[in-house]
Amino acid sequence: MPNEGSYEAALRRSDRIQEDLKVNPKKYTMLTGDRPTGRLHMGHYFGTIKERVRLQELGVRTNIVIADYQVITDRDTTEHIRDNVYNMVMDYLACGIDPAKTMIFTHSAVPFENQLMLPFLSLVTEAEMERNPTVKAEQEASGHALTGLLLTYPVHQACDILFCKGNIVPVGRDQLPHIEITAKIARRFNERYGKVFPDVAGLLTSTPLIPGLDGRKMSKSYGNAISLSMTAEETAKLIKKSKTDSERNITFDPESRPGVSALLTTAAICTGRDEREIAEEIGMGGSGQLKKYVTQAVNDYFAPIRERRHQYEDDLDYVKDVLHDGNARANEVARQTLDEVREAMGMVY
Amino acid sequence: MPNEGSYEAALRRSDRIQEDLKVNPKKYTMLTGDRPTGRLHMGHYFGTIKERVRLQELGVRTNIVIADYQVITDRDTTEHIRDNVYNMVMDYLACGIDPAKTMIFTHSAVPFENQLMLPFLSLVTEAEMERNPTVKAEQEASGHALTGLLLTYPVHQACDILFCKGNIVPVGRDQLPHIEITAKIARRFNERYGKVFPDVAGLLTSTPLIPGLDGRKMSKSYGNAISLSMTAEETAKLIKKSKTDSERNITFDPESRPGVSALLTTAAICTGRDEREIAEEIGMGGSGQLKKYVTQAVNDYFAPIRERRHQYEDDLDYVKDVLHDGNARANEVARQTLDEVREAMGMVY
Repeated sequence: MPNEGSYEAALRRSDRIQEDLKVNPKKYTMLTGDRPTGRLHMGHYFGTIKERVRLQELGVRTNIVIADYQVITDRDTTEHIRDNVYNMVMDYLACGIDPAKTMIFTHSAVPFENQLMLPFLSLVTEAEMERNPTVKAEQEASGHALTGLLLTYPVHQACDILFCKGNIVPVGRDQLPHIEITAKIARRFNERYGKVFPDVAGLLTSTPLIPGLDGRKMSKSYGNAISLSMTAEETAKLIKKSKTDSERNITFDPESRPGVSALLTTAAICTGRDEREIAEEIGMGGSGQLKKYVTQAVNDYFAPIRERRHQYEDDLDYVKDVLHDGNARANEVARQTLDEVREAMGMVY
Repeated sequence: MPNEGSYEAALRRSDRIQEDLKVNPKKYTMLTGDRPTGRLHMGHYFGTIKERVRLQELGVRTNIVIADYQVITDRDTTEHIRDNVYNMVMDYLACGIDPAKTMIFTHSAVPFENQLMLPFLSLVTEAEMERNPTVKAEQEASGHALTGLLLTYPVHQACDILFCKGNIVPVGRDQLPHIEITAKIARRFNERYGKVFPDVAGLLTSTPLIPGLDGRKMSKSYGNAISLSMTAEETAKLIKKSKTDSERNITFDPESRPGVSALLTTAAICTGRDEREIAEEIGMGGSGQLKKYVTQAVNDYFAPIRERRHQYEDDLDYVKDVLHDGNARANEVARQTLDEVREAMGMVY
């Protein structure tokens, strides 16, 4: 976690950029991405996907990496990876990511990007990589010895961001240190070899944190997450078996009533209403009525997204084309950046 | 340094391969290389280049990487790198490396090789990389904080060796740990994802260690090294000012007469004669006569090599062509290996 001062500075900078984005969207290139380890859920949608669509529609150059190599930072297998990647593309498309505007690509498909690992690794020390809090946290969570790939994770991320000259990266507060390493690598490269890379800033997202159905962090492994790819029936079933409490009167109180309150937040975010207003409306209707309301709200909100998703499920060839095209474009962009890097370093023979 | 047992095992294996090479050269692919930080000298020539030419002529598939990214493992600049790279190619060609038989390429020119960094980094732990004695030694020598590039050096080397399916690597004893990491990466990859990479063995070279002119380790920075690119006059001058001692009678005694003995070894290696025999012949002729003998021996030996080198110096276009061609071939080989790696990992979309 960065110290308070640097967080405040990052926040002010992010706010300035948010304002400028409305006026000068063409000045900005965004890079963001996901690990293809499962289906996207509501947390992803409201937390980041919607923001990506907003930036895309503003006219920002938007890029999404499906970070397939990140799957093996702490796992010994790439099982189901192809399926996960295709489904991730379907999720994106269904949510409104437009491949004509946003470049979607897989990390493993872009050798010209990956080569940047070598010069970039020369610009950071082992200690700087170790100090990264996400590396530390993920390593502890994995329970394995720290792999070289997890240790160098902030450097791959720098490659992802910088190969396409990304200058804004939507992040949560806890990811700021990654952006700081990327910014440091860009600065050091430019100082040492001449200006190639832009200044990079984190775009701090102010979206409300949407809890899982039981009030805990939303996570597929907790069984408390509604995936975009679920049917209306599966959604109803999951909400039905979510844990509430024995008090009939519905009130919004995240501290002492996590289950009920999580359901209210879920409904609120899908309807644009306030949690307390919904609670009052249901009142003595109890959990049963609340769950019905939430189910309706979620299924209504996601109906058009799911409808589109079904169309993509039935047209895997199109999904593959989107990815092929994105990968080809990413390689073109990366080839050009790598050429500039080689030129700056005098490595043109 | 590996323990004695593993060294003995590596030596036995190396001896077996040396025998088999004469019968089945086509079973073997060699990878070796150099950091382009200066001109090659006699130590390189007798220590490794001659052996590469021997393997090349035996019919082994031979590959030489000019490891340009290794220049920045512990330096902040790539100054003169292009010049160093071209001169290295000239040195190789002059010494008999035949680009029709040996693939000569620069590390930075092969993105399809460099991508292997990512999956390979997932197969080793930070601790395993840190334990590498060469990483430790070079880090201490550099006096800087350990960069990510130096830490991951054994992994780049694994990429260099494995992208072309190298199964033999000529090494000195102190480099055995690198080969062990490469062999480990190959084994782990094959176990986890299916057989793609060969078994890798170090080919322990038994060439005599040729000392610098002052008896210390031969090194350009000590001013005790005769570069292949020197003229006969420069060679004579360097030998002339080399330090001997005040005893007139010439004898071979490396312990107490390092200067005189280094000169004798230099002459011996160039003439194929024995140091003691040369010493006896010169006897009371003293250092002056010894130096004349050594100068003659070195200049005679290297005359044809230097003659060829001049031709390449006058034809830089040819030198560039050799490198372009080698780089193009290396990318083809690497592209094919990367395809196999992606296929094995299921990362084909």
